[in-house]
Amino acid sequence: MKIDVLTVLPELLESPFAHSIMKRAQEKGLLEVQVHPLRKWAVNKYGMVDDYQYGGGAGMVMMCEPLANAIDELQSARPYDEIIYMTPDGERFNQKTANQLSLKENLLIICGHYKGIDERIREHYVTKEISIGDYVLSGGELAAAVVVDAVGRLLPGVLNDETSALTDSFQDNLLAPPVYTRPADFRGWKVPDILLQGDPKKVEEWRYEQSMQRTKEKRPDLLDE
Amino acid sequence: MKIDVLTVLPELLESPFAHSIMKRAQEKGLLEVQVHPLRKWAVNKYGMVDDYQYGGGAGMVMMCEPLANAIDELQSARPYDEIIYMTPDGERFNQKTANQLSLKENLLIICGHYKGIDERIREHYVTKEISIGDYVLSGGELAAAVVVDAVGRLLPGVLNDETSALTDSFQDNLLAPPVYTRPADFRGWKVPDILLQGDPKKVEEWRYEQSMQRTKEKRPDLLDE
Repeated sequence: MKIDVLTVLPELLESPFAHSIMKRAQEKGLLEVQVHPLRKWAVNKYGMVDDYQYGGGAGMVMMCEPLANAIDELQSARPYDEIIYMTPDGERFNQKTANQLSLKENLLIICGHYKGIDERIREHYVTKEISIGDYVLSGGELAAAVVVDAVGRLLPGVLNDETSALTDSFQDNLLAPPVYTRPADFRGWKVPDILLQGDPKKVEEWRYEQSMQRTKEKRPDLLDE
Repeated sequence: MKIDVLTVLPELLESPFAHSIMKRAQEKGLLEVQVHPLRKWAVNKYGMVDDYQYGGGAGMVMMCEPLANAIDELQSARPYDEIIYMTPDGERFNQKTANQLSLKENLLIICGHYKGIDERIREHYVTKEISIGDYVLSGGELAAAVVVDAVGRLLPGVLNDETSALTDSFQDNLLAPPVYTRPADFRGWKVPDILLQGDPKKVEEWRYEQSMQRTKEKRPDLLDE
């Protein structure tokens, strides 16, 4: 899978893709993430990519021309399955969307910044608008990193069996059960007996009950889906 | 405001806090973000901070002792308003939570990794559990970065008037209206006339209508809140 990321702040994305699971995914050749600086397609030698908004008001808007030229050029090298724009008013990202995107081959993610991108790019280029949650960030860079991470770890071979994604929260519409490790007694705080007794069937039942109970308490909406 | 972040992968968080708005917030002395490597409190000289989970199954669990010792030490220097654990089964982060957290003085954010942290730390130390959305990430690091960014940009003085947060999506339960910048005609795609005519009252009305219409179409749930 190849993911291109288009941003005015490529330096913000240096570390998130260079370590741990995302690094391993790239080293194994399962995922290629390439961050493209939008200023490469700036409209003048000063690197201009944004301008004041029509109608007045606070906040700059990312211009059509650099975005359109960047997308045209990148697209000519590789047809994208989706051209994604990260924006708080997009459809809310969830595990189902992550699963779906993990089946694609080529994605382009556009990071908004300032007040966002010119609406005409959204109308004429963007095929999918994603929000990672109901809050506003300085820009779409961290949101893009979140999507790349959530999707990248689902690619077959990225996680080893030890860290299998199958028992994660949301994969079966249940929250994950509590987890414990050694010591069995820490400052008088004890691990539930059932986990120490070593009966796999009872452990499995206990975990399912805990998952169910936790989901009912914290996120009953998941059980209706 | 001071935010401490506790993580097994400090290197992942190098770039997100070192640029743009988060950098400015720190340079202005409005926000101090300090990333603490959990391995500093490892239980042995090999840097051990995690172990197999009781009851068996895939995935490592972050141990009690390093976390408890780290929190005890950090807490003795600075009483925390909240000790936050980033986890997919926490309460869902939104703009309201961001607003509330932006009024605090000292926060500690614990990033989970692998299968998560030992439940006993959640019971005895953590005061708030936050999820940035219904999806699973490799770890809590990007989630912590998202929270720091969403909260940090709300601190008075971090954003200048130009990029005021007051007109952002969610601040008034409405999605932001479309934005446009020059040129007025790009490849035949035109900016709405009303934005070019320069009547501030009409522009304001148009923006409100667009916000309302967009919210009704995309996120009618926001209007019920």
